Amino acid sequence: MKLNREYSKKRRTRAVLIESALSLMGEGKSLESLGLREVARKAELAPAAFYRHFKDLEDLGLALVEDVSTKLRAILREVRKKGLKRTSMDKSINLFFDYMKSNKILFRFVVREQNGVSSKIRSAIRKELGFFANELAMDLPLGISPAETEFLSQFVVSTCFGIAGEYLDFGVGSNKNERLLKKKALSRLILIYRGAYRKKFEKSN
Amino acid sequence: MKLNREYSKKRRTRAVLIESALSLMGEGKSLESLGLREVARKAELAPAAFYRHFKDLEDLGLALVEDVSTKLRAILREVRKKGLKRTSMDKSINLFFDYMKSNKILFRFVVREQNGVSSKIRSAIRKELGFFANELAMDLPLGISPAETEFLSQFVVSTCFGIAGEYLDFGVGSNKNERLLKKKALSRLILIYRGAYRKKFEKSN
Repeated sequence: MKLNREYSKKRRTRAVLIESALSLMGEGKSLESLGLREVARKAELAPAAFYRHFKDLEDLGLALVEDVSTKLRAILREVRKKGLKRTSMDKSINLFFDYMKSNKILFRFVVREQNGVSSKIRSAIRKELGFFANELAMDLPLGISPAETEFLSQFVVSTCFGIAGEYLDFGVGSNKNERLLKKKALSRLILIYRGAYRKKFEKSN
Repeated sequence: MKLNREYSKKRRTRAVLIESALSLMGEGKSLESLGLREVARKAELAPAAFYRHFKDLEDLGLALVEDVSTKLRAILREVRKKGLKRTSMDKSINLFFDYMKSNKILFRFVVREQNGVSSKIRSAIRKELGFFANELAMDLPLGISPAETEFLSQFVVSTCFGIAGEYLDFGVGSNKNERLLKKKALSRLILIYRGAYRKKFEKSN
């Protein structure tokens, strides 16, 4: 019983440290420029407490990538449930945007640190994006080779995360820009699909 | 005469400061984490000298964006001279990769700061990418509307700069990865063009 309480307290402290780092990043800082003491202070903990949970800030960053993954896999499941067929592509895009809207700081973190200073974090993020591409690949319409499917799903994921950067800059708080960016995302995906499934489209159209 | 000498000395000092900042970034720092004193020290100048040229590091970052622009416009001119027709697309991609190779730190800067902390620098970079898209738009084959042309050229530019991030991570120093990334870039562009010019392709094929 005591052990359990200890464990859950430890997990809570860890979560508070992650939340504090995120909140400082929400105020416009990158992971690299965060101070360990600053994060501890925000969490109302002594700096020594930080080291009981993370080796350093990069280590906390890797935990954040994991956090993002868990959350993004949720949206992926939701999208998959609704199907990725052509008719529901705009619905999938709406979901993606809703998700960005409620997880702005996390998305900013991923978009920024994907090309950030820490190579460990960069590759953790790329690995995660690769995971999404693999998941997506399973839902793509048939009619193209496995290599083409892999290529296509990676392209779709890169395209969505490219739009994410623009959304975080222009879309947040502007309905008009959000609408324009959704339209852009949809047009890009349609173009990609049309390019990839040319023969299929020609057959079925 | 004296004025001229003063002017060219001033320009030289400015260039040395920019070079020093770039060189520190090449060692793995982001603009945000650079210290003004550190840049001045690298340039073998007193911190006060920094302020004679730049208001702050963000100001220096904006000068860097301008620098990148000037250099990237050169490649664009070269690519344009060789034409952007389908047959030379792989040549254009080779040029782009050669250019990244000889300007790694500048590209890293653009790719990183495009989603970096400074909103001024972010929008300067996006503006510059918009400029490239406009230039590219003039060279795209006919057969699509002006709105489609604008959309298409923006998409091509985003796609190339998306690949740039991967190149800086995996391509530098690995011939195999460089080859794979070139192939990826080419396939993505072909897919986009095919999607965009579907009717045209159907007519001409």
